[in-house]
Amino acid sequence: MVRSKASLVNWRDAGVVSTSGSPYCKLRPVPIRAVQMLPGFWKPRMDANRQQSIPALLQLLEEHGVVDNFRRLSGRKEVERRGPYFTDSDLYKWIEAAAFVLQSEDDPKIARMLDEVIDDVVAAQCEDGYLNTFFTGELADQRFRNLPGEHELYCAGHLFQAAIAHHRATGSRKLLDAATRFADYLTTIFGPGKIETPDGHPEIEMALVELYRTTGTRGYLDLAGFFLSLQKFADKQAMEGHAVRAAYLASGGADYYAESGHRTIIDAVERLWADTAEGKMYITGGLGSRYDREAFGWPYELPNERAYAETCAGIANIFWNWRMLAIEGESRFADVMERTLYNGFLSGVSLDGTHYFYMNPLACFCELRRQPWYDTTCCPPNVERMIASLPGCFYSTSDEGIWAHLYDNSRLNWHLEDGRKVSLEQKTSYPWDGSVEIAVSPEAPTEFALFLRIPGWCENASVSIGGEAQRGVPPGEYLKLERTWKPGDVVHLELPMPVSLQESDPRVRENTASIAIQRGPVIYCVESPDNPGVPIRDVELLIGDEFCAEFKPGLLGGVTVVRAKGLHPAPGQNRGLLYREFGSVKLEMEQTALTAIPYYAWANRGPSEMTVWIPGR
Amino acid sequence: MVRSKASLVNWRDAGVVSTSGSPYCKLRPVPIRAVQMLPGFWKPRMDANRQQSIPALLQLLEEHGVVDNFRRLSGRKEVERRGPYFTDSDLYKWIEAAAFVLQSEDDPKIARMLDEVIDDVVAAQCEDGYLNTFFTGELADQRFRNLPGEHELYCAGHLFQAAIAHHRATGSRKLLDAATRFADYLTTIFGPGKIETPDGHPEIEMALVELYRTTGTRGYLDLAGFFLSLQKFADKQAMEGHAVRAAYLASGGADYYAESGHRTIIDAVERLWADTAEGKMYITGGLGSRYDREAFGWPYELPNERAYAETCAGIANIFWNWRMLAIEGESRFADVMERTLYNGFLSGVSLDGTHYFYMNPLACFCELRRQPWYDTTCCPPNVERMIASLPGCFYSTSDEGIWAHLYDNSRLNWHLEDGRKVSLEQKTSYPWDGSVEIAVSPEAPTEFALFLRIPGWCENASVSIGGEAQRGVPPGEYLKLERTWKPGDVVHLELPMPVSLQESDPRVRENTASIAIQRGPVIYCVESPDNPGVPIRDVELLIGDEFCAEFKPGLLGGVTVVRAKGLHPAPGQNRGLLYREFGSVKLEMEQTALTAIPYYAWANRGPSEMTVWIPGR
Repeated sequence: MVRSKASLVNWRDAGVVSTSGSPYCKLRPVPIRAVQMLPGFWKPRMDANRQQSIPALLQLLEEHGVVDNFRRLSGRKEVERRGPYFTDSDLYKWIEAAAFVLQSEDDPKIARMLDEVIDDVVAAQCEDGYLNTFFTGELADQRFRNLPGEHELYCAGHLFQAAIAHHRATGSRKLLDAATRFADYLTTIFGPGKIETPDGHPEIEMALVELYRTTGTRGYLDLAGFFLSLQKFADKQAMEGHAVRAAYLASGGADYYAESGHRTIIDAVERLWADTAEGKMYITGGLGSRYDREAFGWPYELPNERAYAETCAGIANIFWNWRMLAIEGESRFADVMERTLYNGFLSGVSLDGTHYFYMNPLACFCELRRQPWYDTTCCPPNVERMIASLPGCFYSTSDEGIWAHLYDNSRLNWHLEDGRKVSLEQKTSYPWDGSVEIAVSPEAPTEFALFLRIPGWCENASVSIGGEAQRGVPPGEYLKLERTWKPGDVVHLELPMPVSLQESDPRVRENTASIAIQRGPVIYCVESPDNPGVPIRDVELLIGDEFCAEFKPGLLGGVTVVRAKGLHPAPGQNRGLLYREFGSVKLEMEQTALTAIPYYAWANRGPSEMTVWIPGR
Repeated sequence: MVRSKASLVNWRDAGVVSTSGSPYCKLRPVPIRAVQMLPGFWKPRMDANRQQSIPALLQLLEEHGVVDNFRRLSGRKEVERRGPYFTDSDLYKWIEAAAFVLQSEDDPKIARMLDEVIDDVVAAQCEDGYLNTFFTGELADQRFRNLPGEHELYCAGHLFQAAIAHHRATGSRKLLDAATRFADYLTTIFGPGKIETPDGHPEIEMALVELYRTTGTRGYLDLAGFFLSLQKFADKQAMEGHAVRAAYLASGGADYYAESGHRTIIDAVERLWADTAEGKMYITGGLGSRYDREAFGWPYELPNERAYAETCAGIANIFWNWRMLAIEGESRFADVMERTLYNGFLSGVSLDGTHYFYMNPLACFCELRRQPWYDTTCCPPNVERMIASLPGCFYSTSDEGIWAHLYDNSRLNWHLEDGRKVSLEQKTSYPWDGSVEIAVSPEAPTEFALFLRIPGWCENASVSIGGEAQRGVPPGEYLKLERTWKPGDVVHLELPMPVSLQESDPRVRENTASIAIQRGPVIYCVESPDNPGVPIRDVELLIGDEFCAEFKPGLLGGVTVVRAKGLHPAPGQNRGLLYREFGSVKLEMEQTALTAIPYYAWANRGPSEMTVWIPGR
C-alpha cells in the first residue's frame, strides 16, 4: 500500500464527508459536533431519531435476525442465517446513524447498543478480512461470483462508512480496523488483471474514497477509480436505471473527482446532474419515476400517483449535491439539497419517527401507510443516518470565510481555515418564516467573509448588519458579506416567503395546466383530513384568488398551512364517458375552501387522499 | 364423460366462437367462411397476413426451435429443447391462424404447412394424452408442479383452440382428437379433491368451453367452471394485475356464462367490464398501463408515452367484447371491438405484416421500432389469428334476423335461423367514409329484421331504403330495419364522419387540457415524418381552427389524413427551469400546419416521434 503524504484530518474535526484535504474542493466541511441544533425545525426530529427511531430499528433488526447473522458466524449464536443477501448493509447503516448521533451528543444508551453491535460485527470477520454474512459458511464458494446481482461490495461499502462514522464519533479504531482489513483484502482481489466485475449496486465507490480520506491509503482511492471505470462512469450521458444506484454512483464519481481531479469524471457528473435537474427530478427532490426496476424514467416522465421516488433515492440526491456543493461552491446544489430535505426526503418518515415510506408519491387516491419495517428495509436506516448527520450540512468553510447553507436554530463553534475561532448562532422560525438572525462571534474582531445562501426560490431577499441594509439580493447565489466581524455583530437576513404557485415544464404531461403550492422551501399538498367532504382527486385551484399562510402550532408538530379557494364538481352529476367529444361534458362546480399542508407531513393521520399538483383555473 | 344431448353445430357452420347453441346468448355467430372480404380496408391486411405474416412467422418459429421441440419428443429430430416454457402456445396460435385462413379460402401452401406442423404436434403426444414439450423428458416429474408460474394449462388451452379451428377449417379430427385426449386426461387430474391449483395464465377456460361446444362433452365445461372458481372469478371487483391474463379470464367467464347461465359469473363480467370502460382503457382500446408486471393500473392511470397496452391485451379486449356482444346484443361491446380493431390492435403490426409491436404507446419521443420476433413472441401469432378470423366478427343472427356489426366491402352468404337463405353485400370506403351501401338479397321476398350497428361515435346517422329515409338515428344502438326484404333491395347507411376532437375524463391527469383527434372509428396521431421540422413533443393544437380530412391513396397503404393548425415554441428560446413560478416563462410560439395520420399506421417509416394526445388551446 502506498500511503499518501497528505496530513490526515484529526478524527474529531472530520465532516460528514471529510473533504477538508481534497485538492479539488472549493469548500471544506465542518464536523457534525461543531453544530449544535437548538429547538426549531430539525431538533425535535433529531431527538425523535435518537430516542425513537434508532432504538426501535435495532430491535426490528434483531427480530429479523440481522444481528444474529453476525453472531452465527462467530459462533456466539446457533441460528440459521435469515433475510435477503443485503441485510448486513441495513445494520451498517444503523451503526452509521448511531455513530452520527454520538458525534452530536453523548447518549449512553446508544453508545452501549453501538458497542455491542460492533463487537458482534467484528467477531464475524474472516481471517482474510472478508466480512459478509451471506457469502460465508455454506455459500462461501460463491464469494464474488454474483457481483451484478447480490450487493456484496455494496454491503462492504456500508461497512466502511459505518466504521468511519464510528471512528469519528469515538476515536475507536475497532470497526475501522475491520474495515481497512476488508478493504486491503479487496485491493488484492479487484483491479486490472484481477476480478474486473463491478458490483450491481454502487456504494463502495463513495465509501472507498472516504476510507482513503480517513486513512490516507492511496490504494482505496485507486480501487474506487477502478470501479468507476468498470461502471463506464465517464461515458454516461443520462441518468438511467435504478435511481438509488445511479445517484450513489454519481456521488462516488464526485468523491473521486474531489481527490483525483479527473476532468472526464467531473464532466460526467455535471452532465448527469443537468440531465436530472432538467427533466428527471420531482418538485419534491425525489428521484426515480418507475416502479419497474425502481428506475429513472425518460425525460419529463414524472407521474405523480405512480411516482416511485424511493426515500433512499432522495437521500442519494442529497449525498450527491452535498459533494457537488463542496466541489463547486454553487448554490444550485444547496437548492436541490434543501428541496429534497424538506420535501421528498422528510416525507419518508412519520412525525413520530417510527414509520417509513419506501415510495413517496405526489398524489394518493388509495390507501397508503408508512410501515415500521420493509422486507427490503434499506430506507429506514438511511433516513436515520441522514437525520443524524444533518448538522454537518449546515456550514462549510473556504479560504475566504464561512458558508451558511441551511437555516435553523443552531449554534456553530468552529474556526476559520487559519484557525481563528468563530461562533455563529442562528435564530429563526425557518422554514415557516424567512427572518434569520445570525449572531457572529469571533474570539476577537477579525476580517473574513460570511457567505449566506440566498435560496433559488427567494425573490427580494435583504440583509442588514447593524444599520447597513442591502436589498434585492439575487436568488440562487451566496451573498458574500466581507468585513471585520466583531463579537456582538448580528446579521438580519430576510428571505420573504410569499405563497408561490409553481408550474412545471409543459413537457411534464401529468402536470399540464396544474399548480403546486410552495412557500419557502416547503412544497404543499392538499390532503383529505384538512378538507373534509372535498373530493381531492377532483379539486381545481382558483389561481386568481388570495392565498394565505397561517402557522398552526398544534397541527402535525407545528406547520404553516396555506389556505386557498378551489372548485370541485357538485355531487351526483353524470361525469360522462372516459372519452367524449371535447367540451361535451359540463359539470356544475362548487366553490370550496382548501387547506394545504406541507407535503412531508401527509399520511400522519391514517389513510387519506392527497395531491401536490392541482389543476388550476 | 357425460355427453350433452344438444345437437352440435356442423363443423362447417361454426363461428369463430361457436355460441350457436349457447342457451344464454342473444346472438348466434356466422362462420368465417360465410363472409367473403372484398377489396377494401381489411382485405389487403388479410392478404398480407396470409401471404407474408403466416409463412414468415412459421419460418421464425422453426429457426427458434419451436417446432423442433415437438419433433424431439417423437424422436423425429435429436435436438435440445429450446426457448421458454410457453413456446408451444406460440405454435398453437400459429396453427389457429393458419386454420382460420383456410376457413376463408383455399391456400394449398398454408394447408401443406399446417398438415406438416400438426403431424409433428400430434406425434409428440404422450400415451396418457398429456402434451407439452417443456414438461416432458427431463422435466416430466415437474408436470403440474409449477402451475402459477409456467403456463402449462395456458399452452393446453391454445392447443384446444388450434385444434377446434383446424377441425372447422378441414373437418379433420386429427388435432381435435389429440386435444380431446389431453382434455379428457385433464378432467381426471383437476377438479374438487384432485389438483386444485389454477394456472397462473388464464386461457384454458375459454378453450374448454369452446371444446365443450365442439364436442358436447359436459366435463370440459365443468372443468372450465372449476378453474373459474379456483381463480375466484365471481368475487372479482376490479381489473387488476397482468392485463392479458385478466382479460382472457374475463373472456372465459363470459364463455362459461353463455353455457351455464350462472348469474354470479355474468355479474362479475359486467362489473369488470364497467371498471375497464370507465377508467382503465386507452382511447385506442389498449389495456394495461404498466410495464411493471404488464398490468392494469389504478383507475385513470393511463400514461401515454409509458403505456404498455400490449398487443395481446388489445386482442383479449376484442375477444371479451365479442363474447359479451353475443350474450347481450348491445352495441357498447361492438363499439369497444371496433375501437380496438382500428387502433390499439392494428398498431401492433406493420403495414407489410411482418413487424410487430409488443407495446403500443400513445406517444413516442425516443426510438421505437416494430420487430419481426420477440423472445416472448406471444403477440405476432395472436395478431395473425385475430386478422384471419375477422370475417367471422362482421355479422350475427338472432331469432329476429341479421345483425351487422362492422362495415367493409364484403359479401355474406348465410341464412336466417330458420334456414331461409340471405346474401348481403356491403359497398363502402369505411373507415375513411361513412357511406355504406348494403344490397340485401334473400332467395325470395321474406320478412326479417336487419340490425345495423350505429357506432357510438356517430351523431346524425341516417338510413334510406329505396325512397324511405330515416334521419337522426341515435348512436350507440342497433337500428332495427324490419320489413319484407326483396332481392335487389339496397340500404344506404350514412354514418357522418366529421373530425371529432376527443377529451378524456379529467381524472386522467396526463390528458389534462389535451385533445385526441378522431374521425369515424379511427384515432389519429401526429407523427414526425408528416410534420418535418415540428417538435412533436411541444406541439399544441389550435382548437378553434378548421380541421379538414383528405384521403391520400399513396400514403401508408391509403389513409385519410387530418390537417389542423398548431403552435410550437419558436426555436432557440430559453425554456426555463423544470419547476418555476406559474406564468414566469412565456415562450414565443410559432404557428404551424399539422398533419395527423391514423394511429395504427405510425412507425412504418423508420424511427419517429409521435403523439395521440395534444395539448389544446
